[in-house]
Amino acid sequence: MFLERIEKPNDIKRIPKEYYGALAQEIREFLIEKISVAGGHLGANLGAVELTMALHLCMNFPEDKLIWDVGHQSYTHKILTGRKDGFDTLRKFKGMSGFPKTVESDCDCFNTGHSSTSISAGLGMAMARTLQGKNNTIVSVIGDGALTGGMAYEALNNAAKADTNFIIVLNDNNMSISEPVGGVSQYLNSIRTTEAYIDLKDSVKDRLRQMPRGKNMIHGIQRVKSTFKQMVIPGMLFEDMGLTYLGPVDGHNIADMVRVFKEAKRCKEPVLVHVMTHKGKGYAPAERHPARFHGAEPFEIETGLPASKRTKPNYTDIFSTVMCKMGARNENVVAITAAMPDGTGLKRFRNMYPDRFFDVGIAEEHAVTFAAGLATGGLRPIVAIYSSFLQRAYDQILHDVCLQKLPVVFAIDRAGLVGSDGETHQGVFDLSFLSSIPNMTIMAPKNKWELSDMLKFAIAFDGPIAVRYPRGQAYEGLYENRGTIEFGKSEWIYEEKDIAIFAVGSMVKTAVDVHAKLNESGLSCSLNNGRFVKPIDEEALKKAAETHSLIVTMEENVASGGYGEKVREYLDSIQAECKVLTVAIPDKFVEHGSVDQLYKEIGMDADSVVARIQDYL
Amino acid sequence: MFLERIEKPNDIKRIPKEYYGALAQEIREFLIEKISVAGGHLGANLGAVELTMALHLCMNFPEDKLIWDVGHQSYTHKILTGRKDGFDTLRKFKGMSGFPKTVESDCDCFNTGHSSTSISAGLGMAMARTLQGKNNTIVSVIGDGALTGGMAYEALNNAAKADTNFIIVLNDNNMSISEPVGGVSQYLNSIRTTEAYIDLKDSVKDRLRQMPRGKNMIHGIQRVKSTFKQMVIPGMLFEDMGLTYLGPVDGHNIADMVRVFKEAKRCKEPVLVHVMTHKGKGYAPAERHPARFHGAEPFEIETGLPASKRTKPNYTDIFSTVMCKMGARNENVVAITAAMPDGTGLKRFRNMYPDRFFDVGIAEEHAVTFAAGLATGGLRPIVAIYSSFLQRAYDQILHDVCLQKLPVVFAIDRAGLVGSDGETHQGVFDLSFLSSIPNMTIMAPKNKWELSDMLKFAIAFDGPIAVRYPRGQAYEGLYENRGTIEFGKSEWIYEEKDIAIFAVGSMVKTAVDVHAKLNESGLSCSLNNGRFVKPIDEEALKKAAETHSLIVTMEENVASGGYGEKVREYLDSIQAECKVLTVAIPDKFVEHGSVDQLYKEIGMDADSVVARIQDYL
Repeated sequence: MFLERIEKPNDIKRIPKEYYGALAQEIREFLIEKISVAGGHLGANLGAVELTMALHLCMNFPEDKLIWDVGHQSYTHKILTGRKDGFDTLRKFKGMSGFPKTVESDCDCFNTGHSSTSISAGLGMAMARTLQGKNNTIVSVIGDGALTGGMAYEALNNAAKADTNFIIVLNDNNMSISEPVGGVSQYLNSIRTTEAYIDLKDSVKDRLRQMPRGKNMIHGIQRVKSTFKQMVIPGMLFEDMGLTYLGPVDGHNIADMVRVFKEAKRCKEPVLVHVMTHKGKGYAPAERHPARFHGAEPFEIETGLPASKRTKPNYTDIFSTVMCKMGARNENVVAITAAMPDGTGLKRFRNMYPDRFFDVGIAEEHAVTFAAGLATGGLRPIVAIYSSFLQRAYDQILHDVCLQKLPVVFAIDRAGLVGSDGETHQGVFDLSFLSSIPNMTIMAPKNKWELSDMLKFAIAFDGPIAVRYPRGQAYEGLYENRGTIEFGKSEWIYEEKDIAIFAVGSMVKTAVDVHAKLNESGLSCSLNNGRFVKPIDEEALKKAAETHSLIVTMEENVASGGYGEKVREYLDSIQAECKVLTVAIPDKFVEHGSVDQLYKEIGMDADSVVARIQDYL
Repeated sequence: MFLERIEKPNDIKRIPKEYYGALAQEIREFLIEKISVAGGHLGANLGAVELTMALHLCMNFPEDKLIWDVGHQSYTHKILTGRKDGFDTLRKFKGMSGFPKTVESDCDCFNTGHSSTSISAGLGMAMARTLQGKNNTIVSVIGDGALTGGMAYEALNNAAKADTNFIIVLNDNNMSISEPVGGVSQYLNSIRTTEAYIDLKDSVKDRLRQMPRGKNMIHGIQRVKSTFKQMVIPGMLFEDMGLTYLGPVDGHNIADMVRVFKEAKRCKEPVLVHVMTHKGKGYAPAERHPARFHGAEPFEIETGLPASKRTKPNYTDIFSTVMCKMGARNENVVAITAAMPDGTGLKRFRNMYPDRFFDVGIAEEHAVTFAAGLATGGLRPIVAIYSSFLQRAYDQILHDVCLQKLPVVFAIDRAGLVGSDGETHQGVFDLSFLSSIPNMTIMAPKNKWELSDMLKFAIAFDGPIAVRYPRGQAYEGLYENRGTIEFGKSEWIYEEKDIAIFAVGSMVKTAVDVHAKLNESGLSCSLNNGRFVKPIDEEALKKAAETHSLIVTMEENVASGGYGEKVREYLDSIQAECKVLTVAIPDKFVEHGSVDQLYKEIGMDADSVVARIQDYL
């Protein structure tokens, strides 16, 4: 009814106030219906319906700029800016992205996907606006989870000295209540649970009255401080950092939010508006299971259960199982996650060994150096971080782990194409950035058994080591090829002649198909499973170069700095005569879509690889 | 006198209390004398003499663990752990490092060099200790500058929920007073300048008394908060984050510090001890010029003036000059530094265009995404960050700048070997990590004129672009080779036959020598200045491959993911017949020493390259 009237940006302003509740309800139903089919980030979007509406009532698009941190909560913003129809192709190949995209709408001013970037970007836009003498409104919306990322703090610290308006909305959906991941979460929680600061005022007065003058400074101050800690004047933490704080405000009460946002727009400096929302609001299954409905697979609306049942394990399941086993076998094994106990599969380890499990919040840099500290202290840390998020800890891996050759295991999930989350989440750079680092060892398993074997090898290994594995169902072929993992050694799967394919990780499965297709077309082809991306197996390569005329490398990673380049450099160093063809992710960002569609699009499915080999010959 | 008695760890405990002042004085004289000869970080070390002594009086080495953030302030720690004699080879090839090194002493428990890592590492060690049932003391010492780094906040946030003793010493030397870089600096400054919290207590009581009940919540709270902001109960910011705070303590009063450290050791949880020190303490020139004596060249003790006068410009000077010119020419040009206005050469730009200059603190991640925001807002940001520190912003460059093709210019100083600061500071990875990113353009100048031309090209370029240049004196050869910079085009310096060298950046100078030496030995050799590392000049390569039998690539970067690999991949893709030899930094961390010594050590001086070419032939 009211949703029909929203066809372009700012249309919401023509809806009468008294129907805001009805519109919110329609948006929720629309979101549940569409996401139940397409999959997507349901909980965060249901929580941000009224917040988005209130922002749209106070802003003019596209002149004003709204930056969504991470961006998975921007669905209502998409609806309100005329992209309702896009939900039929949500997260599909060539369809609408699940994240803000400047190419999709001029109401999306900044692409997001990774956490904790919005305050930096918004502050930059605010400074640019002011330098150019403009006066449009700039708002960054950041969740309490994203606030654990160090970048957000760097930006808040920097915003404190800016002398121009800039609105930071802290969308506090209390993501950390079940698992408090740190001091700031606890602080926000204390604001949330304080009935009203006024009730506590008197006890502070009493304590101040009792304070003896001139008594031991440290103890005296400690007494006053602990009283103050009970009191919680909302937002003093932010005020102490130099920011103006407004709130807390009920994030499901549009009138209250509009009032506060209007006040925030009048400030002459950056202001933080603290908005309290409920993740999953209005859909019981999502309220009850926030983790499952964070990034949901398609589901049945009535029950909230997955629409299709997974029957086969994915790589995350294998990792999860191995971690539990290794935790029992070796009490030095500890596990670290950056706010992803579910996604990484570490939840079971956490339940079994709570003392040896560390969720550090969305803080990949700290996670890695913290692991370096644990390793220095004699433990065997396993850091489980998705490939695209590990990019953020490149310096820490290099500087804090590898320089000292510390035995830290990096379990890199979502390595390779991830599909519907798209370009910000594709894990196609890790082989490159890890390969550039001295003392690093990198492995990639061909199937589920090899992942298990490699993790065990890694945990026993005395130095920095990474195991990278893809999203989704684990390959169950090549069971018979299960020789012992030896450092730097590859394995031959087929030994023929003419062409030798050297494939790593997920590409071994594709290479098996390529091998069959080449055989069919009358070409002979050997297949080597590289196992180690660094160091490469020089012996196997030398042998192959002597007995084959073409070596084809295959990896689910960009070419630059990847496996193929290492193979090539080695072959040149021995002045090998054979040719080399690299199959790798091309030098462009790969958009969203199903992984199979994307393989085809970039020429990495078996048919395309066969065609490229035939062309090259 | 007393310094002679310090021969091994814990010897300080045998010095009678009354001589601590005399020992501190001797240490200062020793440091000034040694650093005046070797160069090094004088200011920070003079500021930390008493702090280090107090820590050593409260700790047992090597059982207890002391982690120095950045590590440039660890000289007194080196003296007190029996490494006095090492100062004769300080920062020299194969000599003592200017940073903590686990291989140098078992009293150095963690290598540092980059900022803001110490709390993460220390917290990891503390958790490991407790899991293993040990009870040794673990202390991280972090400066107020390093506290602007997001990692430090991630770690503080995480420490707040740890239930084990861990001492964080905030060594507050007020680095930010001249240039407040953010809210936290201002907050620390307010603690420093508050006479005593007690005097302000009454005014708070008054305000609380005046508070009308039930009045407009937001305004009421704001009034109370502003009163509290005046008050400053020391450390409430940290207390609000969940940490126990002790201080502030005079960092030049050993007795006071010992008392507080002993109290801190008794805590059952992480505790932050706030210590106030003076950078450069006890040496007037260093107190007056903290920036110059941060990392000092050799100097005359009496005057504090540099021992040798620089007559020729270095690359930083060229950058500095171009920025001032471009600032005048284009009012959209803005500059960003991460706490390095002096080191990057941006000080002059700051003085000329204060509104268009942003020092964001030690916050490389925020710096890059903030620049992305400025570019989104229509400005032309130049981000000047040293190569090894830019590693920390890999994800931001990829995710926030390149994904959106934003026109951000990266001015990457200290790219290549940096010399005496050693392995943590060598800028030898940037070509690799930048090359892996789609949409990135990378340039490297051969001499001072080309740096100027490239910077102008970059500022006019519509997309993400990096110019990387080395530390030290700018090359003034090849003045005559100054053709216009064209996107993706290299330049031929010598056109001969047989061998073709493709060199980039600093290696062009070396290649000129290689060319001469090869000619002398009767070999013919062309020389191409690559100019662009990405994209490479395929046309020039194709031509070279047709007319030469060997292509040699030269770059001051690791091989993996570098220029040579791109050349190789292209040549294979056209099935070129010529051989390729890559000259690049080997796959190991390169230690400290003079750059010339290091070139020899790793086979990258002209003689070594000539020998490698002759061997290959």
